[in-house]
Amino acid sequence: MITKKNQSTKKLVADWDALMRVFIRPEDDAAECKLLKYMEQILFGLHDFLKKHVGITEEVPLKKLGTRFTQTKIRKHPEKKLADVITDLVEDIAPYAVNVASPYFVGHMTSAIPFFMVHLKTIAAALNQNVVKLETSKVVSVLEKQVLAKIHRLIFNKNEAFYRQHVQNPNTALGTFVEDGTLANITALWVARNRLLCPFKDFNGVESDGIQRAFQVYGINRCVVLVSALHHYSLKKAGGLLGIGNKNVLPVEIDSNNRIDITALEDKIKKIHAKEKKTKILAVVGIAGTTETGTVDPLRNIANICSKYGIYFHVDAAWGGPTLMSEKYCHILDGIHLADSVTIDGHKQFYMPMSCGMVYFKAPEQMDVVRYYANYVIRPGSADLGMKTLSGSREAVSLILDSALKIMGTKGYALLIEHGIETARLFAEEIRSRKLFQLVTPPELNILTYRIFPEHLSRKLTVADSIEKERINEELNHINLTIQRLQREKGNSFVSRTALALDKPSAQKTVVLRAVIMNPMTTIEILRQILDEQERIYDRTF
Amino acid sequence: MITKKNQSTKKLVADWDALMRVFIRPEDDAAECKLLKYMEQILFGLHDFLKKHVGITEEVPLKKLGTRFTQTKIRKHPEKKLADVITDLVEDIAPYAVNVASPYFVGHMTSAIPFFMVHLKTIAAALNQNVVKLETSKVVSVLEKQVLAKIHRLIFNKNEAFYRQHVQNPNTALGTFVEDGTLANITALWVARNRLLCPFKDFNGVESDGIQRAFQVYGINRCVVLVSALHHYSLKKAGGLLGIGNKNVLPVEIDSNNRIDITALEDKIKKIHAKEKKTKILAVVGIAGTTETGTVDPLRNIANICSKYGIYFHVDAAWGGPTLMSEKYCHILDGIHLADSVTIDGHKQFYMPMSCGMVYFKAPEQMDVVRYYANYVIRPGSADLGMKTLSGSREAVSLILDSALKIMGTKGYALLIEHGIETARLFAEEIRSRKLFQLVTPPELNILTYRIFPEHLSRKLTVADSIEKERINEELNHINLTIQRLQREKGNSFVSRTALALDKPSAQKTVVLRAVIMNPMTTIEILRQILDEQERIYDRTF
Repeated sequence: MITKKNQSTKKLVADWDALMRVFIRPEDDAAECKLLKYMEQILFGLHDFLKKHVGITEEVPLKKLGTRFTQTKIRKHPEKKLADVITDLVEDIAPYAVNVASPYFVGHMTSAIPFFMVHLKTIAAALNQNVVKLETSKVVSVLEKQVLAKIHRLIFNKNEAFYRQHVQNPNTALGTFVEDGTLANITALWVARNRLLCPFKDFNGVESDGIQRAFQVYGINRCVVLVSALHHYSLKKAGGLLGIGNKNVLPVEIDSNNRIDITALEDKIKKIHAKEKKTKILAVVGIAGTTETGTVDPLRNIANICSKYGIYFHVDAAWGGPTLMSEKYCHILDGIHLADSVTIDGHKQFYMPMSCGMVYFKAPEQMDVVRYYANYVIRPGSADLGMKTLSGSREAVSLILDSALKIMGTKGYALLIEHGIETARLFAEEIRSRKLFQLVTPPELNILTYRIFPEHLSRKLTVADSIEKERINEELNHINLTIQRLQREKGNSFVSRTALALDKPSAQKTVVLRAVIMNPMTTIEILRQILDEQERIYDRTF
Repeated sequence: MITKKNQSTKKLVADWDALMRVFIRPEDDAAECKLLKYMEQILFGLHDFLKKHVGITEEVPLKKLGTRFTQTKIRKHPEKKLADVITDLVEDIAPYAVNVASPYFVGHMTSAIPFFMVHLKTIAAALNQNVVKLETSKVVSVLEKQVLAKIHRLIFNKNEAFYRQHVQNPNTALGTFVEDGTLANITALWVARNRLLCPFKDFNGVESDGIQRAFQVYGINRCVVLVSALHHYSLKKAGGLLGIGNKNVLPVEIDSNNRIDITALEDKIKKIHAKEKKTKILAVVGIAGTTETGTVDPLRNIANICSKYGIYFHVDAAWGGPTLMSEKYCHILDGIHLADSVTIDGHKQFYMPMSCGMVYFKAPEQMDVVRYYANYVIRPGSADLGMKTLSGSREAVSLILDSALKIMGTKGYALLIEHGIETARLFAEEIRSRKLFQLVTPPELNILTYRIFPEHLSRKLTVADSIEKERINEELNHINLTIQRLQREKGNSFVSRTALALDKPSAQKTVVLRAVIMNPMTTIEILRQILDEQERIYDRTF
């Protein structure tokens, strides 16, 4: 990094006195003032950057950027003082980071967060509790159980007596915080696997004895998970990790609305039951907000099928879960309370800072099958939360979520959700009204996909044979790839892209542009500007 | 919660204007001033609490505490304003949290952190980058690769050319950040499993095809992991999760120094190779700082054995890893660079806030076996870090570690490490010099265990038969349990307790008190006061 003009050039030495100074919180006004000054620099230095750099980032090719980060020896003596480190981060790192808070950043499920979230995260850091056990968290573990009950109630809406019984019950668990949605889905399928392959006579269960022995005892040679073809890749990862094999996470066809095809699902189940005696269905996963199109599977129908065939039903609502707070749109998730477990992400539509995954279980005893003890902590009978979690040491993110719920109310969140859905609908209309574009998947929640679809290619496509069709689609893919890249590189705004399998049975995928509308400052005017820019780039490039 | 006198009682309403105000960063001086005021309250409100409440926590029985956290409905409209939420956290939550920063808190691997860590965490929160992909992190992904290379170099110390080749290489990975040590160990064994049961002819590997098919192809019916009896419970969890079964994580005897018995280890390997043709050894795990006694396995010897028999060698250095920064004591970890992978925790002896696990791989291609792609992100050939990680969305904790390394230097960390080890030695001497106590496991690093061992019971024990011996040990266990509990409840200081299997072949475990010395403000004087208090409690109670 370039040395700043004002940075201290005095040689820094690590010694005991210096060390004690960073551990002892300041006693006098002058020192307190200095600490606060640093916070000011953080809050408003970054603020200025966020104001100055519209769009995702200043354009510096990655390779060139990489050459500045190649030094790999840790220096023996301090290189920088805190003030200089903060200056570096504000002046040298932030400008090359991605401004996810910009209303022109509509490409991913990461967005602006309310400013108070930064304050709340600071509190969690200053307290530095470890919620793996009571002895390093005490009240925070108690509060975490309460927050888990609040979100469980939002999803499953059991009666008051149920929550009174379980909210502070050390023997039951309504859910758990995990790092992110991937670990939430893994936890759900871990529980489902252990329930399916549970202890039986002298078999101690799959967790203890392993897959090989479990399959032997149950007389099977395969476990499968059924989920729509639009599932998140974490489900495949879960299959791989859990030893059932990721190829056994089987995609089920989607209908024309990008939802799982219910008939295809039931046919698949029937077929497995009839013809594959040695295959067990571990779980069916429904998606409440697919990553690529934001669409929601018919949860109630899936629940009915699962209930009919006695199959574990998990819902991946990492994205869509908070829609439950909107009285206007919660019906889109109808049937979610019938699931056995539900994934939901705090760092997505609860607008929390990275990283806060959660998974909830309808039955409070469900998580007993993933219980671990240790002598020095999480002893049997204790209320230590680390007893039934994938991870061990954990940050107290529940403090942040709980405070956010108090500050926002469900109504505050509902306003955000509704703004996203309704702005996405306006955006869809705008896309439909412009000649250059084709709306590919209309928004059910607040995600839509579209593509550049010039009229001359559209006309050609309608009369093309299959070989010519493939060539034209190739050309369209190339156009869309290029425009997404050029727009990203200009740095004014950002939409993402993905590739959808629209043209079945052809294996050819369709490249689409993907917009995620979750920033309350993203207005239809801004979205129009984004389309205007894409039109300009197209005119100039093709 | 009790309503504070100064709290606003005006009815709060969620509306669009209020919502926009929390998303738009303030424009004028007055508003900026207010934001800063909140930070002041956080930094110094908590500071005052930390000063006032020595010891781990105010004494409020957990059940009583629980009754205050039973409300499970999320309110529709806002309950509190940010200022009031902060006041609640400072005045109503913090006093019942655990003051892990107190120098009298010597019970767990959580301690005071330098104040600048809170500032650094605040920066990470304010930037809110998601390092799963470049499109939501850019420079921060680049910086993360550099930090990973720095710690890799600290552990494996390859030459400059090696690091030049890999530091910014998008196709290789020197390691990854994970939530904590548990997920680090899981990741290491996940990689080891996939390498052992790798693709072979028409078999696509265990990750794709599952354990059952893998075992069939390789003609085995069991995979085992060998590790000292003092291993962390996360290794059992890894065995369960990965489908090999947690009962196949086999404990190897320890020697009188609480290190893995090298002869027993080699015998076990030989025996498996000779007699259990259908068992494969997945990995041997060495521990660099066991959780209970802080002892370090003879890593070089284990490495030699693993090399001789061609077995994957993982080191769990979650605790002890940073000892490598001390020129004086790094020899304790001699041989760690021979491991295939190493776990190390940032939130332990790098003194970072919760939660920062890491795992490093000697061979930069090792992680290829856990690679996942998705259409909308982490596409083949990209430099997206999420391609080879257990989790998906992740906070940019690398920013914090990198800054901390710059501020501290290896020398700064070395001073902390050395203080811990040397103070633990002084503490051991002190325990030895007092009649009421018995030093059970002397400190190799900065952890020791001891117990209350009254002279009259000590005398009885020497002449007792085995039944009487068991009775006396039962009594000793009861005494130690009681004193640890009473001291914890008094709230002046905190040592933890665990139960060690010292008296083999008897199944009876010995309850010991456990001290972890990692706070630079914990002096031998403070430790003497802790013993004094235990003596007083003993005199009063027994």
